[in-house]
Amino acid sequence: MATRSHSGRSRRGKPGATRQQIERSQRFERARRDSLRPEPDGRAVMYGWHTVTAALQNPARRIRMLLATRNAARRLNEEGVVSPVAPHIVQPTAIDERLAPDVVHQGLYLETDPLPSPAIEDLSAHGVVLVLDQITDPHNVGAIFRSAAAFGASAIVTTRRHSSDATGALAKVACGALEYVPLVNVQNLARALAALKQKGFLVIGLDSSGEADLASLPLRRPLALVLGAEGRGLRQLTKETCDYVACIHLPGEIRSLNVSNAAALALFIVNRSA
Amino acid sequence: MATRSHSGRSRRGKPGATRQQIERSQRFERARRDSLRPEPDGRAVMYGWHTVTAALQNPARRIRMLLATRNAARRLNEEGVVSPVAPHIVQPTAIDERLAPDVVHQGLYLETDPLPSPAIEDLSAHGVVLVLDQITDPHNVGAIFRSAAAFGASAIVTTRRHSSDATGALAKVACGALEYVPLVNVQNLARALAALKQKGFLVIGLDSSGEADLASLPLRRPLALVLGAEGRGLRQLTKETCDYVACIHLPGEIRSLNVSNAAALALFIVNRSA
Repeated sequence: MATRSHSGRSRRGKPGATRQQIERSQRFERARRDSLRPEPDGRAVMYGWHTVTAALQNPARRIRMLLATRNAARRLNEEGVVSPVAPHIVQPTAIDERLAPDVVHQGLYLETDPLPSPAIEDLSAHGVVLVLDQITDPHNVGAIFRSAAAFGASAIVTTRRHSSDATGALAKVACGALEYVPLVNVQNLARALAALKQKGFLVIGLDSSGEADLASLPLRRPLALVLGAEGRGLRQLTKETCDYVACIHLPGEIRSLNVSNAAALALFIVNRSA
Repeated sequence: MATRSHSGRSRRGKPGATRQQIERSQRFERARRDSLRPEPDGRAVMYGWHTVTAALQNPARRIRMLLATRNAARRLNEEGVVSPVAPHIVQPTAIDERLAPDVVHQGLYLETDPLPSPAIEDLSAHGVVLVLDQITDPHNVGAIFRSAAAFGASAIVTTRRHSSDATGALAKVACGALEYVPLVNVQNLARALAALKQKGFLVIGLDSSGEADLASLPLRRPLALVLGAEGRGLRQLTKETCDYVACIHLPGEIRSLNVSNAAALALFIVNRSA
C-alpha cells in the first residue's frame, strides 16, 4: 500500500502566507498525517481498545508489534484476549509519542500487515457490497466500515488512489469493523462496477440528485451500493455505469446527508427489502 | 454561551511527558480549539459556502461581520445571495489565519450572534425532537443537525455543559442545518425530559443495550429520541427517565453504530411510522 496524500485541499505554501503561518500549518499537517498514513513499508497502525482487541482476535491478521500500558495489559488478561505476540509493556507516553496529539489510544498500540484485499471475482454472489467513489475523510470511511459490519455487508470496494488507508483514525472510528468487512482495492472503479455486473450484481448509485427513491426500487441480491465523495458526489462515469441512480427520500429542508449517514440508511433500506 | 472544554481526554501535562511533547500537544490543542470554540463574547464563527450562505439567508441571524475573497464575493453576487452586511473583501490568507490549519473555508468567514435558544415549553406538540446526552464530538453533532434538518425534526435539545457549541467545525459539518433546526440549551437533561413528557412527548432512549427494537415500538408524535455519548451511551438517570430504551436491529457482527449514523436511522424509522 503506497503512501498517498489524504487531502487535495491543503493550503500550505499558498502565496501571501507568512512564514509563521506556513510553519504552523506544516506542523499541524504532519501531526494529522502521522495518525492517518500507512508507513512506507505498508504496515497498518491501530490504537484504542475495540480496534486493537478486534485485530488481535482476527486469525487473518499478521501482527508485527503490540505496545500496551500495564493497565491495558492487565485488562487484556482479565478479558481473556490472547495476543499472538507478547505485548511490550510501556508507559502511556511511549504510545503518545507515536501518534498525533489528542488521539485517545486507551493504552494499546498495534502494528500489523494490512489484511489481504480479495478480488471482485471472489466476492459472494449473495451479499451486499458498498462501493466508495473517492471518499477521502477517514472518519466517514471508518463510520461506513462500522455500519457495513453492523448490517452484514460482505465487502467495501474502493480505488487505491483517492481513498483513505485502512489504518490510524479510520481504523479507530471503524471500531473493530475492519476485521469483519474485507476491503477490495481496485485500480479503476468503472471497471470494478462492470465486473460486479458481470457477476450478477445489481449496481445502484446513491446521489441526492437521483430520480428514483431507493426504498421503492426493485431491490435484490447480490447488490452493490455506490457512494460518492463528500461535496462532489458520484462522478459522471460512475453514474453512467450504475443500473440506477437513486436518492433517499428526505422530507426536510436539507436534501443531502453526510455520506456515512447515507450509507447507514441505504444499508437499512436494503436489509429490510432484499 | 460560555467557553467550555470540548474534550475531557486531553493528555496535556500528563506525568512523564517530555516538555517537547507537552508543547507539541498544546500547539495542536490550541489550533483545534480555535476552530471550535465560541469567542468569549459569545459570537459564533462560520466558514464554508453552504454554512455561510445559509446563515446569510436566515433573517433570524444577527450578522456581525463577513469576510469574503474576491472570488467568493463574485459567486455570492452571481447566485443572488444578499448579505445583510457588506462583505470585507480579503485575501484567502486573512481567513486562513483566523482558523485552524487545514480548514476548508471556500473564501467565506462569518461572525454572528448565536441563534436564540427556544424553551422546551415553546416546542411544537406535533414534532420529533432529538435529545443529545453529552455528545461532544462536533463532527457527530454537526452530522446530526444535518440529518435532523433533512428529516424535518423540530429541534435538538442538549445540555449547556458537556456538549459542543454551534460554531466552527460543527457548523461546517452541519452544512447549513443550524439555520433550520433550533438548538434548545438546557441546564439539566432529566428535567428537560420530564418537561417534554409533561407536554405529551413520548420519550425514547436509543441504546445498543435496549431491549425493544425501535421499529416495532408503538411510535407516535410528539416524540423525543434521546441519543447517548460516543463510547459511554446514555447515562443511567437518562435511561430511567425514558418511556422506552430501544435499539436498532443490527443483523451483523457489530452491535452498535456511530451516534450520527444511529440518529439518521432513528429519524428514518420514526418518519416512516409516526
